[in-house]
Amino acid sequence: MFFHKQELQFKASPSKPDAVYARRLQEVLGGQYGEISVAMQYGFQAWNSHKPGKYRDLLFGIGAEEFGHVEMLAIMIAQLLEKAPVEQSEAAMAADPVLGAVIGGTDVQAAIVAGAGARPVDSNGNPWQGSYVTASGNLLADFTANANAEMQGRVQAARLFNMTDDKGVRDLLSFLIARDTMHQNQWLAAIAELQAEGTETLPVPSNFPINQEHREFSYEYINFSDGPAAAEGSWAAGPTPDGKGEFSYRDGPETSVPMPPPTQPDSRFFGT
Amino acid sequence: MFFHKQELQFKASPSKPDAVYARRLQEVLGGQYGEISVAMQYGFQAWNSHKPGKYRDLLFGIGAEEFGHVEMLAIMIAQLLEKAPVEQSEAAMAADPVLGAVIGGTDVQAAIVAGAGARPVDSNGNPWQGSYVTASGNLLADFTANANAEMQGRVQAARLFNMTDDKGVRDLLSFLIARDTMHQNQWLAAIAELQAEGTETLPVPSNFPINQEHREFSYEYINFSDGPAAAEGSWAAGPTPDGKGEFSYRDGPETSVPMPPPTQPDSRFFGT
Amino acid sequence: MFFHKQELQFKASPSKPDAVYARRLQEVLGGQYGEISVAMQYGFQAWNSHKPGKYRDLLFGIGAEEFGHVEMLAIMIAQLLEKAPVEQSEAAMAADPVLGAVIGGTDVQAAIVAGAGARPVDSNGNPWQGSYVTASGNLLADFTANANAEMQGRVQAARLFNMTDDKGVRDLLSFLIARDTMHQNQWLAAIAELQAEGTETLPVPSNFPINQEHREFSYEYINFSDGPAAAEGSWAAGPTPDGKGEFSYRDGPETSVPMPPPTQPDSRFFGT
Amino acid sequence: MFFHKQELQFKASPSKPDAVYARRLQEVLGGQYGEISVAMQYGFQAWNSHKPGKYRDLLFGIGAEEFGHVEMLAIMIAQLLEKAPVEQSEAAMAADPVLGAVIGGTDVQAAIVAGAGARPVDSNGNPWQGSYVTASGNLLADFTANANAEMQGRVQAARLFNMTDDKGVRDLLSFLIARDTMHQNQWLAAIAELQAEGTETLPVPSNFPINQEHREFSYEYINFSDGPAAAEGSWAAGPTPDGKGEFSYRDGPETSVPMPPPTQPDSRFFGT
Amino acid sequence: MFFHKQELQFKASPSKPDAVYARRLQEVLGGQYGEISVAMQYGFQAWNSHKPGKYRDLLFGIGAEEFGHVEMLAIMIAQLLEKAPVEQSEAAMAADPVLGAVIGGTDVQAAIVAGAGARPVDSNGNPWQGSYVTASGNLLADFTANANAEMQGRVQAARLFNMTDDKGVRDLLSFLIARDTMHQNQWLAAIAELQAEGTETLPVPSNFPINQEHREFSYEYINFSDGPAAAEGSWAAGPTPDGKGEFSYRDGPETSVPMPPPTQPDSRFFGT
Amino acid sequence: MFFHKQELQFKASPSKPDAVYARRLQEVLGGQYGEISVAMQYGFQAWNSHKPGKYRDLLFGIGAEEFGHVEMLAIMIAQLLEKAPVEQSEAAMAADPVLGAVIGGTDVQAAIVAGAGARPVDSNGNPWQGSYVTASGNLLADFTANANAEMQGRVQAARLFNMTDDKGVRDLLSFLIARDTMHQNQWLAAIAELQAEGTETLPVPSNFPINQEHREFSYEYINFSDGPAAAEGSWAAGPTPDGKGEFSYRDGPETSVPMPPPTQPDSRFFGT
Ligand SMILES: [Ca+2]
Ligand SMILES: [Ca+2]
Ligand SMILES: [Ca+2]
Ligand SMILES: [Ca+2]
Ligand SMILES: [Ca+2]
Ligand SMILES: [Ca+2]
Repeated sequence: MFFHKQELQFKASPSKPDAVYARRLQEVLGGQYGEISVAMQYGFQAWNSHKPGKYRDLLFGIGAEEFGHVEMLAIMIAQLLEKAPVEQSEAAMAADPVLGAVIGGTDVQAAIVAGAGARPVDSNGNPWQGSYVTASGNLLADFTANANAEMQGRVQAARLFNMTDDKGVRDLLSFLIARDTMHQNQWLAAIAELQAEGTETLPVPSNFPINQEHREFSYEYINFSDGPAAAEGSWAAGPTPDGKGEFSYRDGPETSVPMPPPTQPDSRFFGT
Repeated sequence: MFFHKQELQFKASPSKPDAVYARRLQEVLGGQYGEISVAMQYGFQAWNSHKPGKYRDLLFGIGAEEFGHVEMLAIMIAQLLEKAPVEQSEAAMAADPVLGAVIGGTDVQAAIVAGAGARPVDSNGNPWQGSYVTASGNLLADFTANANAEMQGRVQAARLFNMTDDKGVRDLLSFLIARDTMHQNQWLAAIAELQAEGTETLPVPSNFPINQEHREFSYEYINFSDGPAAAEGSWAAGPTPDGKGEFSYRDGPETSVPMPPPTQPDSRFFGT
Repeated sequence: MFFHKQELQFKASPSKPDAVYARRLQEVLGGQYGEISVAMQYGFQAWNSHKPGKYRDLLFGIGAEEFGHVEMLAIMIAQLLEKAPVEQSEAAMAADPVLGAVIGGTDVQAAIVAGAGARPVDSNGNPWQGSYVTASGNLLADFTANANAEMQGRVQAARLFNMTDDKGVRDLLSFLIARDTMHQNQWLAAIAELQAEGTETLPVPSNFPINQEHREFSYEYINFSDGPAAAEGSWAAGPTPDGKGEFSYRDGPETSVPMPPPTQPDSRFFGT
Repeated sequence: MFFHKQELQFKASPSKPDAVYARRLQEVLGGQYGEISVAMQYGFQAWNSHKPGKYRDLLFGIGAEEFGHVEMLAIMIAQLLEKAPVEQSEAAMAADPVLGAVIGGTDVQAAIVAGAGARPVDSNGNPWQGSYVTASGNLLADFTANANAEMQGRVQAARLFNMTDDKGVRDLLSFLIARDTMHQNQWLAAIAELQAEGTETLPVPSNFPINQEHREFSYEYINFSDGPAAAEGSWAAGPTPDGKGEFSYRDGPETSVPMPPPTQPDSRFFGT
Repeated sequence: MFFHKQELQFKASPSKPDAVYARRLQEVLGGQYGEISVAMQYGFQAWNSHKPGKYRDLLFGIGAEEFGHVEMLAIMIAQLLEKAPVEQSEAAMAADPVLGAVIGGTDVQAAIVAGAGARPVDSNGNPWQGSYVTASGNLLADFTANANAEMQGRVQAARLFNMTDDKGVRDLLSFLIARDTMHQNQWLAAIAELQAEGTETLPVPSNFPINQEHREFSYEYINFSDGPAAAEGSWAAGPTPDGKGEFSYRDGPETSVPMPPPTQPDSRFFGT
Repeated sequence: MFFHKQELQFKASPSKPDAVYARRLQEVLGGQYGEISVAMQYGFQAWNSHKPGKYRDLLFGIGAEEFGHVEMLAIMIAQLLEKAPVEQSEAAMAADPVLGAVIGGTDVQAAIVAGAGARPVDSNGNPWQGSYVTASGNLLADFTANANAEMQGRVQAARLFNMTDDKGVRDLLSFLIARDTMHQNQWLAAIAELQAEGTETLPVPSNFPINQEHREFSYEYINFSDGPAAAEGSWAAGPTPDGKGEFSYRDGPETSVPMPPPTQPDSRFFGT
């Protein structure tokens, strides 16, 4: 169950409205790596989890915070849009070049569809979608997805920080970036703990019997491009991170097999 | 530039056709974590990369292999569909319960749209989409996305392995799973190398000035749920993985701020 | 069957071209609540309807008009785009700030993809999609969806009216807004008639046996937030609109149940 | 801010697993009118609202409950999937016709992607999307959208009720259907209250100056189809629900205008 | 303007209901090459056309017929769904294997969402989308798209013809296939006429000054694969269809250029 | 198998960065008719093909080239974005009107999401999707789709050519346009060859028994609009392109049938 309180975790008001920036901020609300994505992702991972206790609690604990971040950004965006202009004729633009820029830079649907409101979309107006969510049921894989989400999210928030000089907006971003720092660290700690405990190890999924894979291909770097530096990295020689092999390097595949003959389906599929 | 050779990296023929399984296998061809996703993801990361040398070579080298995996799966799926039935009337189903199951379990578009061919869609028929791709320009974030993709992909392939007993299909999956093992290991090695070199460190992005975030919130686990085990993990106390702080734990937020007042946009947005 | 006549229901020509506005107008052509949506929605409701006579006739009668509205807007948009500029270099923009605004404000695909033509997309370029359509087979639910569509559509058209001062565009919008007024009124009249006749009543669907729902929860407002004014409305006390109960108010849930234990699926799903 | 409690508003466990039904139940979790839709819709309407007090409190109060409904359905679906089969070979299907039906009827991604878990998708596997949300800033329009959502949702839940005989599932649906009854009634009460107060009246939006629409077309039913019963309804004669006119009926348009001539854009768009 | 008549161009009733087939038939209603696609495509091409007269008349004339085909299929599908079962429990399936197959093969949303009605989706339940439409403003390109659409549509209808033995369904398909034959022929005739008149010639667009392309690459087949039969076709030697060159064949590119160095964007994008 | 070489088929560097143009160029990279579309389309057609030899070789040979075009455009776009501005405040725009235009005209996600990189999206930021691909298994239909794709692609590239005066960009476009010329010609040659050989003829699919269609409707132009020039074209009289009939013209349908009565599904679908 979720309970709502009409307060915010941190203040979320701009120094002054800025409809152009409102559009940009939609990215971290409704984009691939926005707050809706992490809120939903942690929620589905928790609801589907197979173990009671600390990992599930962690998912619920951070997940609920993220729903609050969705709210903070929505409220911030609504305030950034508060003075969004209605008149947007060419005459108005000719009279005021900045208005022209503003008009070009705002999300037109924020005005036409939402009447100067936030929306569950990204900065290009693409609606948020469920396929942004990863919840496989394997916690090591999923926590890696979570670490990635917090990294991508922090990169985006950091870029947005430098796209404005509004003190109020920057203040909120400073807060959200700090929380991304925390959550990055938490998922990385949980990734280490899963492995230290032996709950799940590399390669993921670790309970797939390793002899069911073609082990002769498991640690060989087959380079299908021609870059001369390809063999220099730690991924081309030495022990592998899963502790189960040694990397080797090969310049292209050693062997190959002929393509199977083309298929001949039922003639009533009317192929040629 | 890409050059194509009419050979395969590994044999990709089923022991016998199985249209129901063909649909399942579409997931690792055209799904969120299928081969099209990794091929495109590594490609865009390479094309956008800012450093010449080993990391870009690695992206190109694996990326080109993945395009070959796309091909292997497409060709396998076409063969699995080779005997897909055309007649699918209710009378036919009444006469043969297995046919009924087959009809229920196949992708109807494989027959109607592709004439028994593979398609760039997942196992539910959702078209592959560009928003599955992550390429932020930050290599530590992106390699974490890559490690996740290879983990999710290996989990899915392992599940698919147990959904069939066809020797030819299992043989291909054993090969692809081995390559997933390799690629998981490679991205994890590259993640370690980026940090060891100092090219990029935690928290990502590491060149965002850390004093621009509200550091008092950077290492505090604020639990917005009520799970009693929440505080037990290594993410609630002790040093943080980024080496820059100490985790602390708090049961809910210590402070909060009132919501800002509702916005009052131009009345010609006709809100209420 | 549909018959087409090469005339329009109302004049649809702008006083002069305006490519920036053309993009805005796409919203009411190909957006969530644009003319394509209502034309298709009324069509599917009619084709699926279970009763001959007045309700189906109403759906066909308005639906066919809406296809004509699609046409009027497409033709208006093509004319607004008639002088859309081809050259759009930075040099050109530096020489003419208004051009810059124009370039920023136009739909780039109107030029590149359609050669200065209308498209089945919204004002952000999102393609129209079938999931905008509601046609459940329950007329009281569906007519409520229709009333909503005409309200949202009229709100958007009213906003667009104030975003231009072009006499021709405003004239068309004045016409379309009048038709929205009519259609709002018609669906509301039909909603009343369905109930007055007893064809369908509240709660929808009314032929679901009401004793199959947990009636103790059917009229209780359980407030999961902390707003002090929550209990002031007519939704918190007094008779309910369906005429079958009395509203009551509760500050949060009275009882709750523990979460069921986590699931334990087959280990070959390789969860953790 | 949202706070999470690891309890449920009502019990949400099936009598026994049923993977086929799990897929069906996804519709009211992640479909167009599922719980994610209403949770998000009420959230965005609240965050964007322009008036403090009872209407915003109502949105927050119901919205937070809906997030809990999302959770209840996700947890129910995970339990329904708990015994989802891994082996799904044709041999297995031949041996057990029910298995064949099960395989045909389940969501293949629930197994391959989520390892027997719930997902933010509908019953056909289409990802939930932000374009299901309506939040225009006009409360009379938006509450009509909400009433529609609760009607459509209750219709779907009622259909699902009869698609199973599992006592646990039916019990949860009886609860959710009761809540839909409540929420339908609440939005209808709020719609009446908005008008009774004069906050917003018909036609929506009521603060658009009505003399800016072509009033001669505002109450005329122009029938573009040929149904003989078209003129029988209360929408064709008598006073209009907005109290501002009288319906009239016309069999097709009285007048029309010629199409404007085709457009002649810049020849460098390379049209013909 | 469109006028609707409550009659059909051809009879559209099945001999008996068949919910499994109803799902299949959705492909030619709401799929990529279904009737909605051609109706909308011809409509947008007409509304955007730059020439009055025969070509525009052709687009309007066929386009309006296609809207009627949408209607015929929707009505056929509703009838095929008329006896769609409500009870779909596992017990019911165990008692009746055909029911199991039926359940596996039907579109679950046809029941849950539409109450046994047609929907604007394809046979996998993907909503129809505006990006299926092609309308570039260049008639030779667009009529080629139209010829393709009628070919793909006829291939699909022919496949569907053999998936049923219902006389009523086959009768309708025989009619629609005949119309596809006609429309294929019409677009091919129009393609020839455009060129014969010189309105538009090859390569499309013909009014792009041909000396602005690198003519040395305009007729050379550079084979990036290794198929030995690649050079045998009429596309590798002899005069080109545009009448402006001679095909030549080359086994891979003759020359290439080095990749440009990686980019170095502003460091505040926080790349690595 | 695909092999990658770190060279380009043609030089792909702009004279100077231009972030506004970068967005435009995304259309021919990730749009409906961009290079990703043709690369994938030719790939899937090849993988699904039923005949060894020249047609399959042609698909592989061109397909692999197109993957290289994807790369060239991605690399060009990254360079165009190299100087994309980070600061984008309103103050900055007021000081520099061109900056305002730039900000309005760029793809905001290129900055926020990709850190000045190319993405698999079109010029409006819509992600590339698998439903852009056509691969039916019928080569005459599919090669017509390919000819259309190369025509649409060349039209778009020609439009883009005139939207810039950057010598480097124009040089690349001159190359790509030349290749479009070649590929248009090749698919048209292959279309002719398929028919000349008798591998596939008109109407497509030619192996559907023509007596299974209602031949009385196969060559009759039934004009559902009222354009007076409709009957003037070669599509209204004379021999048909398939060589199997004579066109005739009719002004609207000669006969029609009544609509079937509305359906009466199970009452537990709760329709009205
Ligand atoms: Ca967050
Ligand atoms: Ca792979
Ligand atoms: Ca309308
Ligand atoms: Ca609910
Ligand atoms: Ca047709
Ligand atoms: Ca190309």
